[in-house]
Amino acid sequence: MGADLGQQLPARFVWVRSSEGKAQLAGLAAEKNRPKILEAPLTVIIGNDLDFPNQFPKLLPYNAETAQKAFAQPGLAEVTAMRNGSLQGAYLIIAARALGLDCGPMSGFDNAGVDQAFFAGTRIQSNFICCLGYGRPDSLFPRNPRLTFEEAGHFA
Amino acid sequence: MGADLGQQLPARFVWVRSSEGKAQLAGLAAEKNRPKILEAPLTVIIGNDLDFPNQFPKLLPYNAETAQKAFAQPGLAEVTAMRNGSLQGAYLIIAARALGLDCGPMSGFDNAGVDQAFFAGTRIQSNFICCLGYGRPDSLFPRNPRLTFEEAGHFA
Repeated sequence: MGADLGQQLPARFVWVRSSEGKAQLAGLAAEKNRPKILEAPLTVIIGNDLDFPNQFPKLLPYNAETAQKAFAQPGLAEVTAMRNGSLQGAYLIIAARALGLDCGPMSGFDNAGVDQAFFAGTRIQSNFICCLGYGRPDSLFPRNPRLTFEEAGHFA
Repeated sequence: MGADLGQQLPARFVWVRSSEGKAQLAGLAAEKNRPKILEAPLTVIIGNDLDFPNQFPKLLPYNAETAQKAFAQPGLAEVTAMRNGSLQGAYLIIAARALGLDCGPMSGFDNAGVDQAFFAGTRIQSNFICCLGYGRPDSLFPRNPRLTFEEAGHFA
């Protein structure tokens, strides 16, 4: 949807919609998040694939080898996956909203447990999860204050 | 624009539009990114404010103290700021595109140098930078391949 930085596309998605999947994910979530996962038609786990450079021959055919070499630098794949995977997660939220769905993104869950349950045998690490569906108006609270333009930044 | 997780809103923005600001930022960027910064009408630095919990009395008036206590846990503010600050950066990109602007997000720059030049005396850390303006059609390349639905995930 939107741009990431350099076509790295590290996000991977598990679309949890079966009863078994929901129960497993809910069991690994913070208590207050459990009913949300069980009640939502679908909850997506957004993960960062630390092996994302393996896809460069497809994604960056003109530059794959150079780009793969660059990401051999220790720590770079991790921070890049977190940055770009989060951008991709935000595009998912915007895309779902554009379809009229409500989104409930959450980070209150056992990351290591989710990785073991849903990403075993890979180098994918869970970033956040997001319920998709239609929110109940009676469970929504009023929009909270935001920072002003000046509080959040300045010209230079 | 979109949702972040828990109204933490850690992103801070420096809107670089003066000649001095552009020259300073370009001097801290990877060589291939310099002309982009100098030619763009504006480049925004998206930073993560590790002190974001200080804003909770305004942003989360009903829950500020509990939330601030939670983020005293070592490392949690950093990963949370990176996740939510990147989501906010993606919303900025989508908002700019909705206004008809082209976006050039980049991570090829000296983060420590940018932090010193633009965020001195704060705990704000640069995440990525993004040129805003109107791209020249002759400098654009064709859209690269994406992963298929199945390559990027599965149902569970």
